[in-house]
Amino acid sequence: MKFFDTQSLKTLPSRERATLINSISGIRSANLIGTRGSSGTNLSVFNSVMHLGSDPALLGVVFRPLTVERHTYANIKDLKDFSVNAITSAMAARAHQTSAKYPEGTSEFEAVGFEPLFRKETHIPFVKESPIHILCSYSQEHLLENQCVLVTASIKAIWIEEKALGHGYFINHEHIKTVGIGGLDAYYSTTLEGRYAYAKPDQSPTKIDPK
Amino acid sequence: MKFFDTQSLKTLPSRERATLINSISGIRSANLIGTRGSSGTNLSVFNSVMHLGSDPALLGVVFRPLTVERHTYANIKDLKDFSVNAITSAMAARAHQTSAKYPEGTSEFEAVGFEPLFRKETHIPFVKESPIHILCSYSQEHLLENQCVLVTASIKAIWIEEKALGHGYFINHEHIKTVGIGGLDAYYSTTLEGRYAYAKPDQSPTKIDPK
Repeated sequence: MKFFDTQSLKTLPSRERATLINSISGIRSANLIGTRGSSGTNLSVFNSVMHLGSDPALLGVVFRPLTVERHTYANIKDLKDFSVNAITSAMAARAHQTSAKYPEGTSEFEAVGFEPLFRKETHIPFVKESPIHILCSYSQEHLLENQCVLVTASIKAIWIEEKALGHGYFINHEHIKTVGIGGLDAYYSTTLEGRYAYAKPDQSPTKIDPK
Repeated sequence: MKFFDTQSLKTLPSRERATLINSISGIRSANLIGTRGSSGTNLSVFNSVMHLGSDPALLGVVFRPLTVERHTYANIKDLKDFSVNAITSAMAARAHQTSAKYPEGTSEFEAVGFEPLFRKETHIPFVKESPIHILCSYSQEHLLENQCVLVTASIKAIWIEEKALGHGYFINHEHIKTVGIGGLDAYYSTTLEGRYAYAKPDQSPTKIDPK
């Protein structure tokens, strides 16, 4: 196995170190966050949306240090509501393109080719072709020691394509072709290998039929 | 699309609500955390290990509320060092089985069938057959509003199988068969669809050869 300690990591060129460390902890979620600012709608790819709790339903999003202007963060702080939209294989190239530094006033929806969807519940846009739409509302934020910010948000509503739902509200991400992200720029399709029953010490691992 | 708001989510049976909300934000990383406590070694599956920073290299792990005894958390607080080990397809069933409530004093390594690997750099065990070993050290913790705890940890060392590494230290998770987790119990294999170049406003999305 190839070995790196803190010293050898320090000697790597910064882009290569970032590439390595960004991918080391595994596959990350792939979502587009939709917001609205004073100059219009905004859409940006995120690999840092995470589940934090089910009751009440709570998500987290990690933002990089706020040393440069972050439109998505500023818009969320301003209007509280934002949308989280799952990224599918067919959406991956355009989703990645939202990470380009478009000038303020350019909507990434139009620039990369996603149709915005508006709903009566909010003034924030969703991505029409995404199979999962989550309406979130800013709750709190936590400043981490590297100046990243974890924003927590309550889930106000969910829209999900019927074909995603299996037995007992299990979401089969293979059915809707949700991708995962490796590091900052690698998109992986996902194939369900198995779903397992609640594990007990005196039983072997048992697969559940996800339906 | 099927619609849920906070009211209709509240009326779902708690297990079904948890199943739905746990999976809604997408694919999660799949890792085994190895620790050591007063009664021996401990190994537990986690879907909440996340990248937080590359320089310095920082990971985060979300723990559920500490209202019941959490061996992994307690061991990390006590000895600071812990290991993060990537889960592959071949490891998934046994990795899931570590979530069973084995009595204290039973090592999940032995109970589920993983061979521990010890290295000179630490007294904490790694999972021998895992293709990525990360040695972490507790840094800080942040209490979230739902009583979950985000523990941050610095990366002290990494061991990675050579075949995982592509151009510029890109980790190709398909090459080492890293899985992702949906919710708490669904394991997905991953296929690299494409890696994209740094996005620019005046260029179309461009794939990079990951090698």
